[in-house]
Amino acid sequence: MKSSKEYLQLIEQALKDKSYGSSPKELYEPISYIMSLGGKRLRPVLVLMATDFFGADIKKALHPALAVELFHNFTLVHDDIMDKAPVRRNQPTVHRKWNDSVAILSADAMMVKAYQEMCKAEAALLPALLDVFSDTAVKVCEGQQFDMNYETEIKVSIIQYLKMIELKTAVLIGGSLKIGAIVGGAREEDAQALYNFGKHIGIAFQLQDDILDVFGDEEKFGKQKGGDIIANKKTYLLLKALEMVEGNRYMKEELHQWINAPEFNPKEKVEAVTTIYNFLNVKELATKEMKKQFDKALTFLDLIPVVVSNKQELIMFAESLMVREI
Amino acid sequence: MKSSKEYLQLIEQALKDKSYGSSPKELYEPISYIMSLGGKRLRPVLVLMATDFFGADIKKALHPALAVELFHNFTLVHDDIMDKAPVRRNQPTVHRKWNDSVAILSADAMMVKAYQEMCKAEAALLPALLDVFSDTAVKVCEGQQFDMNYETEIKVSIIQYLKMIELKTAVLIGGSLKIGAIVGGAREEDAQALYNFGKHIGIAFQLQDDILDVFGDEEKFGKQKGGDIIANKKTYLLLKALEMVEGNRYMKEELHQWINAPEFNPKEKVEAVTTIYNFLNVKELATKEMKKQFDKALTFLDLIPVVVSNKQELIMFAESLMVREI
Repeated sequence: MKSSKEYLQLIEQALKDKSYGSSPKELYEPISYIMSLGGKRLRPVLVLMATDFFGADIKKALHPALAVELFHNFTLVHDDIMDKAPVRRNQPTVHRKWNDSVAILSADAMMVKAYQEMCKAEAALLPALLDVFSDTAVKVCEGQQFDMNYETEIKVSIIQYLKMIELKTAVLIGGSLKIGAIVGGAREEDAQALYNFGKHIGIAFQLQDDILDVFGDEEKFGKQKGGDIIANKKTYLLLKALEMVEGNRYMKEELHQWINAPEFNPKEKVEAVTTIYNFLNVKELATKEMKKQFDKALTFLDLIPVVVSNKQELIMFAESLMVREI
Repeated sequence: MKSSKEYLQLIEQALKDKSYGSSPKELYEPISYIMSLGGKRLRPVLVLMATDFFGADIKKALHPALAVELFHNFTLVHDDIMDKAPVRRNQPTVHRKWNDSVAILSADAMMVKAYQEMCKAEAALLPALLDVFSDTAVKVCEGQQFDMNYETEIKVSIIQYLKMIELKTAVLIGGSLKIGAIVGGAREEDAQALYNFGKHIGIAFQLQDDILDVFGDEEKFGKQKGGDIIANKKTYLLLKALEMVEGNRYMKEELHQWINAPEFNPKEKVEAVTTIYNFLNVKELATKEMKKQFDKALTFLDLIPVVVSNKQELIMFAESLMVREI
C-alpha cells in the first residue's frame, strides 16, 4: 500500500485540476473557496486507502473520493449557517464571506456535484456506491439534527450522545471506507466489515476530540482550550460528569451553577469545570470508552481476509489519527 | 395514453404510501408536511406521461416521478428561506413553522431521498437517469442564483431573463419528461427532443405566469393581482416596458418614479404601471413571445417518431397548462 502522504497528494492534485463551473459566480466561487481551504482530506484519503487495501488500482477511486470530500464540505457550509459559525479553517465561513442565501444555494449545488462525481465511477458499481453514499448522507443529516436538539434538551444520555456522534461523524468515516472497498472489488461482507471498522474509529476519533478540547495541548491542537466547556457543549465529558455528580449534592450544585451562569469569566469557568472533571476522573472514563471503540474497530478488521501488512497500514493510520495532538 | 387525472391519482397514492423516516422528528416531519401540501404534481405527472408516451409500463416510472417531486419540494423549501416567504400553498412555509435550521437540514435530507428514489429505477438506466437528474438540479441552482442576482441588478436584459427562467423553471419540466422518456426506453435523440419540448413549454408557462400576475382573473388565479408590480419583480413585462420607455422621457420618468418610490399606495401603483403596460402593449408582446416558445416546443415534438394520437395528448396537456386561469 502507498503512504497516506501519497494518497493526499493525489487528492490535492485532483482537487486542483477540478473546476466546478463559473457562472453565476455567486454560486461557484463559494464552492472553489471552501474546497480550497484545505483540511486533512481524511475522508477522500480513506476512500483511496480502502481501494488500495483490496489491491485494486486507486485511480478508479479518485472520483468517488472527490464525491465524499464534496459532500463533507457541503455539510460544513450548511452546518456553519445553522451554528452561526464565523470561522472555518481560520478563514471566514461562506455565509459570513457572502451571505446565508449564497451559502445555502452553493452548498446545494455542491451536493449535486458530489453525486455527479460519484456517478463517474464504473456503471456496474453505481447501485452499490450510491446506496452507501445516500444512506450515509441521510444519517449525517439525522446526526446534525440530533446534535441541534441536544443543545436545548436538558437530559441527554451517554447512549444518545454516542448514537449522535455515530450518525454525525462516524458513519461518513465508515462510508468512505466502504465506498473505497466497493471500488476495490471487495465482497459485500468485507466492505461492510470495513464500514464497521471505520464507524468505530470515527466514534473513537470524536471522543478524542472531546478530550483534546479540555486536556489537549493548546498550541498543537490549534483551538482555544475549553471551548466546549465555555459553550456548555454536551460532550462525553460533560454528560459523564452530570451523570456522576447526581450522588454528590455539593458538586452537582457547583457544576450546574457554572452551566447556568449567565455571565462568567471564561478562564475561571474552564478551570472550575476542569477541576470537577479531574475529581471525577472523567478524562480516564472517556479514554476508556475511546479505547473500547478502537478495539471494537479492530475486531471488524480481523474479519477481512487480506494480507496482514495491509491491515497494519490501516491500523497505523488510524492510530496516527488518534494520537494526533494531545 | 392515460388521462392526466389517472397519472395524478397514481402519484398521490404513491406519496400517501410513502414514509420518509421518523427520528429525529424535526428532520422528518417537515418532509411529510411539505410533501402533503399538494400542488399540481406537474413534474411527476410529466414523468409518467413521458413513459406512457413511448408505450412503456408507467409503473416503472413511479420512483423516478417521486424523485422529481422530492427534488422540486427541496428547492421550494430552500427558496422560501432565501425569499423569506411566509406562505406556501396557503400554509406556513417550513422555515416559519419550524425555523431556518430545520428548513435547511430537512430539505437537504429530502434531496438525498430524491436520489434514493431515483436509484430504485432499473440499474441499467441509472447512468442516464442520474445524468439528466443531476444536470437539471445544477441548472435549477444556477437559475435561482441568477434570479437572486437580478433582484438587485439595475440592468437585466430580456435575453438574460429568458435564460434565467429557462434554468430556474423550464429545465426541470424538460428534465422530468426526459427522465420519463429514458424509463420508457426512448432513444437518446428522442428523449432529448422531448426534453427540448418541455423546456420551451416551461418557458412559455413562466411567461404566462408573468402575464397572469398582472392581467389574470384574481379569483381564478388565487393570488393578489399585481404582486410582481408591487415588488418590482423583474418580469418579462417590466423588462420589456423598461426597454421601450427608453425613447419616451415622460413615460420613462413615470415608470422609474413608481419603481423607486419608497412609499406608495399598492393599488395605485398597480393601476399606474398597468396603464403604462397597456399603453406599451407589453401584454401582447409577452403573449407573442409565449406563443413563439410554445410553437418552438412543438417543432421538437414533431421530430419524435411516435403515433400522432400520443403527441396530441401531450399537446392537449401542455395547452391545458397554458390556458389555465386567464
